[in-house]
Amino acid sequence: MDSKIGKELAQNFNIVFKDGSLLDEAFTQASYVNEHPNQGLKFYERIEFLGDAVLQFVVSEYIFKRYPNLPQGRLTRLRAAMVNEESFASFARECHFNEYIRLGKGEELAHARERDSLLCDIFESFVGAVYMDQGIDKVITFAKQVIFPKLDQGRFDEYFDHKTELQETVQADGPVNIEYKLLSEEGPENDRTFKSAVMIDGEELGVGQAHSKKHAEQLAAREALLRLKKQH
Amino acid sequence: MDSKIGKELAQNFNIVFKDGSLLDEAFTQASYVNEHPNQGLKFYERIEFLGDAVLQFVVSEYIFKRYPNLPQGRLTRLRAAMVNEESFASFARECHFNEYIRLGKGEELAHARERDSLLCDIFESFVGAVYMDQGIDKVITFAKQVIFPKLDQGRFDEYFDHKTELQETVQADGPVNIEYKLLSEEGPENDRTFKSAVMIDGEELGVGQAHSKKHAEQLAAREALLRLKKQH
Repeated sequence: MDSKIGKELAQNFNIVFKDGSLLDEAFTQASYVNEHPNQGLKFYERIEFLGDAVLQFVVSEYIFKRYPNLPQGRLTRLRAAMVNEESFASFARECHFNEYIRLGKGEELAHARERDSLLCDIFESFVGAVYMDQGIDKVITFAKQVIFPKLDQGRFDEYFDHKTELQETVQADGPVNIEYKLLSEEGPENDRTFKSAVMIDGEELGVGQAHSKKHAEQLAAREALLRLKKQH
Repeated sequence: MDSKIGKELAQNFNIVFKDGSLLDEAFTQASYVNEHPNQGLKFYERIEFLGDAVLQFVVSEYIFKRYPNLPQGRLTRLRAAMVNEESFASFARECHFNEYIRLGKGEELAHARERDSLLCDIFESFVGAVYMDQGIDKVITFAKQVIFPKLDQGRFDEYFDHKTELQETVQADGPVNIEYKLLSEEGPENDRTFKSAVMIDGEELGVGQAHSKKHAEQLAAREALLRLKKQH
């Protein structure tokens, strides 16, 4: 195992591999193995197969528990937004995995190192290696650092409908009156800012501000949901 | 929870739910909930979402570890053969889950109870409920009873290529001579039986018998693989 990689993984994620060969496998592409025959090297594909399933599982469980009122269809859409090539590639870059990959010369010249499809694979193979070396709890710890915070940062908000979620949450135990109120509308015509509040049975539970009324209401609903969750 | 279901699950799978409401949820279709409003019933869809991911994960890990020489593409094909509507529906029937489902009257009349798509969903939701109630180890125990033995029974053999697997296994540490020898060919033209042996560096490691030479060779390779695994 490359000692620089080992050091960075320990520093950034508190992950120290017992079996460094798993890490080598996770970061090695077939093209590199082909250029270094007779060294008994393995490439990442098999362990990526495992990591893919581990990630699906860990993300599924997290959103299942975190959004207890989200119906299946929306859970499935949200998972699809989180578990895909584009987001895994971006997580891989954020973790500097693009620097860690061992590539053959041809692939290097073809800029494979920055290709989303490869980076996605490598993100999965890394998780597969963590799982094999240290088990599911360490994978969850890693996901809590790299994947799950993106939900709070609004990264997947387009897949969410906070207004519907709020409605389902507060009406779970019976009918409740939900109203959105426009508090203010300011600024020039081409850069208007809207401020909306959501009122639940007359009580203001959240306020949102955005460049469209619709988005402001979504943000208000999101704030109300966060507040309700804290009360529970 | 229906006490008959609880009893059967305890007898057949040694599974005793702590939280019976999870089991109710797993076996209840939306149509039944709609016919029984105001009872706070839940239907299986959310927990099926979770169970689906749990099953993918458990099956992936099992075949990843069991077939250490199977390349990713073949692992993926094998998983697809194990994790799909048809096989999950058959597992559900084998477990008598078709008898446990709570359906609305219309769905009952439409014979939904025997529909593969519903039975597959129910198999997943049951596993989701087991996972929520008792954790991953109990799911693996259940899979060892219901899913994994099918591999040894040859249920997914069409997705396997034992000859290729044998080749990859024995040649992992360098070139080895593999030969298939026809031992005998018997019976009438329209019902001929072929007996083949696989020789590895001159030593007979497996014998197979089937109605085609190709299948006899596959079975011989399979026997050789089992023998090699025992040696390890």
